[in-house]
Amino acid sequence: MTSAASVSASAKVPRTLSWQGDTSGHLRMIDQTLLPTEFREIDCKTVEDVWEAIRMLRVRGAPAIGVAAAYGLVLGLQSAVERSRGEFDAALEQTVEYLSSSRPTAVNLFWALDRMRSAAKRAAEADSAQVLQLLLDEARQIEEEDREMCAAIGRVGAELLRDGDSVLTHCNAGGLATAGDGTALSVFFAAAAQGKQIHVFVDETRPLLQGARLTEWELMQRSIPATLICDSMAGWVMKQGGVRAVVTGADRIAANGDAANKIGTYSVATLAKAHGIPFYVAAPSSTFDLSLSSGAEIPIEERAANEITHGFGRQTAPDNAQVFNPAFDVTDAELIAAIITERGLITPVTEENVRRTVQRIAES
Amino acid sequence: MTSAASVSASAKVPRTLSWQGDTSGHLRMIDQTLLPTEFREIDCKTVEDVWEAIRMLRVRGAPAIGVAAAYGLVLGLQSAVERSRGEFDAALEQTVEYLSSSRPTAVNLFWALDRMRSAAKRAAEADSAQVLQLLLDEARQIEEEDREMCAAIGRVGAELLRDGDSVLTHCNAGGLATAGDGTALSVFFAAAAQGKQIHVFVDETRPLLQGARLTEWELMQRSIPATLICDSMAGWVMKQGGVRAVVTGADRIAANGDAANKIGTYSVATLAKAHGIPFYVAAPSSTFDLSLSSGAEIPIEERAANEITHGFGRQTAPDNAQVFNPAFDVTDAELIAAIITERGLITPVTEENVRRTVQRIAES
Repeated sequence: MTSAASVSASAKVPRTLSWQGDTSGHLRMIDQTLLPTEFREIDCKTVEDVWEAIRMLRVRGAPAIGVAAAYGLVLGLQSAVERSRGEFDAALEQTVEYLSSSRPTAVNLFWALDRMRSAAKRAAEADSAQVLQLLLDEARQIEEEDREMCAAIGRVGAELLRDGDSVLTHCNAGGLATAGDGTALSVFFAAAAQGKQIHVFVDETRPLLQGARLTEWELMQRSIPATLICDSMAGWVMKQGGVRAVVTGADRIAANGDAANKIGTYSVATLAKAHGIPFYVAAPSSTFDLSLSSGAEIPIEERAANEITHGFGRQTAPDNAQVFNPAFDVTDAELIAAIITERGLITPVTEENVRRTVQRIAES
Repeated sequence: MTSAASVSASAKVPRTLSWQGDTSGHLRMIDQTLLPTEFREIDCKTVEDVWEAIRMLRVRGAPAIGVAAAYGLVLGLQSAVERSRGEFDAALEQTVEYLSSSRPTAVNLFWALDRMRSAAKRAAEADSAQVLQLLLDEARQIEEEDREMCAAIGRVGAELLRDGDSVLTHCNAGGLATAGDGTALSVFFAAAAQGKQIHVFVDETRPLLQGARLTEWELMQRSIPATLICDSMAGWVMKQGGVRAVVTGADRIAANGDAANKIGTYSVATLAKAHGIPFYVAAPSSTFDLSLSSGAEIPIEERAANEITHGFGRQTAPDNAQVFNPAFDVTDAELIAAIITERGLITPVTEENVRRTVQRIAES
């Protein structure tokens, strides 16, 4: 498999999300609930369609949800375009509130809707049709910035990989979670685009199997050689000398660099350290929460037992089995060789270096 | 939950295997393919029934297969009891050959059948009915020795655990794999019988989920508090301070103490070391293969991709996904705090200590 094949294949990869047409257009998205056994794009032509798609996880991943919500707001206001500006603004507030109810814990959802609302407010003198156009422009801008963020992370991270490297990743920090190429996976895609041969071990990522279902699918779509393993095999693959680096995403990073990510990431990072393998986190600056001094302050969501006991369409544990099902864990900064951001590497991972990079972003 | 409850509950636990009646009796066993959602005992009244039960994994685990085969031979010779000794011996050879074909890679199967054949040969002067009785006695002896081995491992290992300990195990090294209380699980049962409060974290053990399906079930049957986790959560549970010791079984142990066991064991042992938690292997002396100088010589079986891609009734990875599915891994002796055998602890795990314990057994 040549890198040329990777690059040409990548050109054909469908976008997770794309707006079709002008202000009277609609939102097209990959229905991720059908992956990996079926690839189907769906057209969301009403705000209700977008609400349902977010709620039902047809689109998931914080950045992708934000983009979907922004376009959803445009859809919700198409029918208000002939009305007065006052009526339009009222409809906007109502639609923002409606979309906010689709996944109440998704921070990027609120962030994107706030940004859309602000764009409308700034255009106080514009008529409804003009505001709808501004909102579509703003949604496209949010999408474009997300795409650029992914590309920048890819560029920065690809420098860490060498031709012929075999790497390992956990969960899905890919294009399916963003409007672009993802975070951790963007690093692999960028390295391949540079002509480097990269092979990826993909942790299946129990309980919800995002690695098996989504990451393996994305890598195959882009013709990046990938080998699916159970999470429990990562240590053995490392022991055999099969892994030169580990790259994962992150859900939230504290000021000292401690990083929360999908459950199992901490085990992978600890195993990497035991084998002398660098462990990298790829995440945009928006992932940092400088109000938290360390990972100990990051709340860990516990999820339903049936994700473990009935994971594959069949009951695989006894009735009433007691289960511990944390959705995330926290990897200590000292286990992280570098954090790959759109503005450059944070390494070594210290509070000073985190603040220098993240605050520079805030100022720019 | 009191230890008294554990003890009284354990008295009611059905046996994995039990012979019913005299030489004209039959073999009763738990159909493990139905666990954990259904508990059903089946009666094997012909040698064909036993052959099918071994083949279809209704009974699994090396020691349990050996016991089942021994009783299967008795069943296969019930109809030969009225025949001449020459005809009986011919039927014996034929039945041994037939049972050997049920699971060609199961070492204990051949070992048990060889031992049965030798018992018959020793009684050169006996008539067919007398030999059948001797064979039933020998099968019972094999079962009883297995039960005693489990009990001895439990007694030795229980001394390592303290009242209030939380422990972790991987896969199923339980009573379902033996005629007795198992190996790793026997340690927990014995500690509970001593009145110690023990809580067990159970790795679900992908891909075949022996932890979720069998170990969790056994612990619940015996009223030992147990918490089921995904394999990827073990490190995080250790980090939270939730694990005081890890105990697993082993499939094969080299002369230097390197131990092959279910895939994922090496990761657990490495994570235990990183957290300063002792990692113990519980295994009978028959598990040692002193012809192998180290674990590097232990062949690792690779199994079918669909165990990972189509685990439990549903496809969870893309068509044609490349998969690595080793059935076992090898834990270095230096990661093992002690090996718990029926003759005592091997600690520190060195070749000298292994040979001293295992050869003492061979001589006795």
